[in-house]
Amino acid sequence: MNSRETNRRRFLKKSVALAGLAVGGMRSASGQTPGSATPDGSARDPRLYGERSSFEKSAREIERDGRTRPFSSAALLTPLQDLDGIITPSALHYVNDHGPSKDELDPRNHRLMIHGMVERPIVFTLEELKRLPAVSRIYFIECPGNTTPNSNGRSRETVQQSHGRTSCSEWTGVPLSLLLKGTGVKSGASWVVAESADPQKYAKSIPLDKCMEDTLVAYSQNGEAVRPENGYPVRLVVPGWEGISSVKWLRRIKVVDQPYLFQNEIGAQPHVRHDGKARWFQFVMGPNSVITRPSGKQQIPGPGFYVITGLAWSGNGTVRRVEVSTDGGRTWKDARLEDPVLPLAHARFNLDWQWNGQEAVLQSRCTDDKGFVQPSLEELGKIWGVQKSFWTTATTNMGHFNPIYPWKVNRDGSVHNALFA
Amino acid sequence: MNSRETNRRRFLKKSVALAGLAVGGMRSASGQTPGSATPDGSARDPRLYGERSSFEKSAREIERDGRTRPFSSAALLTPLQDLDGIITPSALHYVNDHGPSKDELDPRNHRLMIHGMVERPIVFTLEELKRLPAVSRIYFIECPGNTTPNSNGRSRETVQQSHGRTSCSEWTGVPLSLLLKGTGVKSGASWVVAESADPQKYAKSIPLDKCMEDTLVAYSQNGEAVRPENGYPVRLVVPGWEGISSVKWLRRIKVVDQPYLFQNEIGAQPHVRHDGKARWFQFVMGPNSVITRPSGKQQIPGPGFYVITGLAWSGNGTVRRVEVSTDGGRTWKDARLEDPVLPLAHARFNLDWQWNGQEAVLQSRCTDDKGFVQPSLEELGKIWGVQKSFWTTATTNMGHFNPIYPWKVNRDGSVHNALFA
Repeated sequence: MNSRETNRRRFLKKSVALAGLAVGGMRSASGQTPGSATPDGSARDPRLYGERSSFEKSAREIERDGRTRPFSSAALLTPLQDLDGIITPSALHYVNDHGPSKDELDPRNHRLMIHGMVERPIVFTLEELKRLPAVSRIYFIECPGNTTPNSNGRSRETVQQSHGRTSCSEWTGVPLSLLLKGTGVKSGASWVVAESADPQKYAKSIPLDKCMEDTLVAYSQNGEAVRPENGYPVRLVVPGWEGISSVKWLRRIKVVDQPYLFQNEIGAQPHVRHDGKARWFQFVMGPNSVITRPSGKQQIPGPGFYVITGLAWSGNGTVRRVEVSTDGGRTWKDARLEDPVLPLAHARFNLDWQWNGQEAVLQSRCTDDKGFVQPSLEELGKIWGVQKSFWTTATTNMGHFNPIYPWKVNRDGSVHNALFA
Repeated sequence: MNSRETNRRRFLKKSVALAGLAVGGMRSASGQTPGSATPDGSARDPRLYGERSSFEKSAREIERDGRTRPFSSAALLTPLQDLDGIITPSALHYVNDHGPSKDELDPRNHRLMIHGMVERPIVFTLEELKRLPAVSRIYFIECPGNTTPNSNGRSRETVQQSHGRTSCSEWTGVPLSLLLKGTGVKSGASWVVAESADPQKYAKSIPLDKCMEDTLVAYSQNGEAVRPENGYPVRLVVPGWEGISSVKWLRRIKVVDQPYLFQNEIGAQPHVRHDGKARWFQFVMGPNSVITRPSGKQQIPGPGFYVITGLAWSGNGTVRRVEVSTDGGRTWKDARLEDPVLPLAHARFNLDWQWNGQEAVLQSRCTDDKGFVQPSLEELGKIWGVQKSFWTTATTNMGHFNPIYPWKVNRDGSVHNALFA
């Protein structure tokens, strides 16, 4: 028995109190199972793996922000205005990479190493990871840059442009706590560094406490393998926290005793004010909500009955209440929260609305189960200690921008972003 | 104002207590929204609408049952052995049609008529339906013929073949109760007849009570439009009941005072015993569960630690308990139920298992929150008043076959269906 095998056996004794993890899993490396029909590699057969109707055209939008984004190579925005319910179809999950695109990884060759301040460093194949106890949870992932105004001084025109950096999926994976317990975290350790297999070796420092609480090493998204652009074959899911922590194409977890302050953590992730002061280590995504229909650049055909619908979420826990105003915030009504309302997941809200053909300003406000309330733009400015003009002139990547978001309905039925109106 | 418009206004007064449903919706008929990028109709761009990794090959299996199936044209089975969590990817949802395949429907031309014993018959466009208050719910749909043994006397070899006619999605749509309330159901009405736009005009009688309780007229599946083979652009979802009630490509709801006993209801859906007695109108799918890994035709690489995982569900309500036996039913252990456990949805269970390399028989048993327990094959025979041989020699479409389902692990690690062993 070589030392790798010895460590594997010790790992299991510590993590699941059972010895003997044989190599190989019950599924083959391709996820193919004996007896399954095999689609031809070239021709698509929608009987074997279905496709949406050719009449459906909803699509991610490729970010065309003029802002210099040194640490990002591409952003694909989720079309929230087209979606129903709380699950984001995997094909439409947002993508916001911090480096060159990742070529598709071969799951048979991929490895995850756990090392650093641990008693028994270990390297996992994907099959070995899949042999361990897993959990499935419906979680949102949101980029901390979601909703940030454009640098041209105007806010985004559509809800896809303003809020399209949040999505919600059912994630399945191994609790990181189980992996860390199995390797034996050494006394004095307080952070981990999670590293991607992407070309720039994107990495992120994460406090050990969060890793032990609810962080997942996820290989499945909405029932099937994580999609390539979402970190195939394995990624972190750090629920409720900035999406930048949920490292994709995960290949290394190093247990350490301090944050490592990688280039992207220094340059992009602190949120700098004009006076040079900054917020660091603000991990939790605050309470947020947005009306997705009607929303910016949509057209209401005429006076009459409509349902105002939208999404609410909070990195603090579970959405408890969503209020909607149709008069610019003078009065508020409780919206219906649709079952299921789950911790650290998108929640769907609805409110019936009779449009009388006059100007109206529609907006929503989320309250979570810890009592945190989504702030107005003014309240957010006070929290940050900045003037309103700050939000539209900031040249850094301002994150954690979660104000109550107003859409103005004009008499002609056109709907426009009214955040800075 | 023509009579159609008059009825529409009256409908809204009754259903949502608000007048004035203008024609046209906030989304265009294609689901396309201003500002969305448009994928080229011919070339696929995975940035706009993502695709799974080319390494992933999991697929629906085309039913190759030798049984004469006069009312079915095709069956596509969900690869449960490959899936994680509770959401079935829409591309892998089971399909079991009762007639020739449906050509893709153009949503702009599709209509839903509600008529019969109602005060105000009405015809809806899809856009009009989408204007009404909707709910989103995670529900399983299961064919009553799921798990039925082959007519050749042997049971299915893989879990995809035995249990691949159940799937679970987030469905969004208008409660049928709202539509019926709006049209004004006449006194004496007790059933509805739901009709499909497929070539054979598939239709199903459904008691009015269920329609008023929780039945949905659904246009969305896992966040986006219902897939073509699952009823695009609109279908019924009758939660917890036989999948045959969840009429796809829904075009007509007729309120009536008795079941209509359509050809398929007479020929395929009563469950006939050898002595000629039959069960009719057994709508609710009973408590069920199955171990999906390890399962038939899989290979366990060697003794050691594994997680036994599977799905449980019940048309009566919510799964409360899943027990797993690894010794053919002599002893049972409670499996972990993974959050969320939702009413009328699949639930995921897991149990850690140390395989010692000896023969083992693995099986699971579901108990729901109404106290119903999944029966053994013997118990099911007593309920039906039939001998064991009945199940393997029946020539009719035996449905509601939900026995505890054993998989035998041989010493060489091979796994086989042991239901009739």
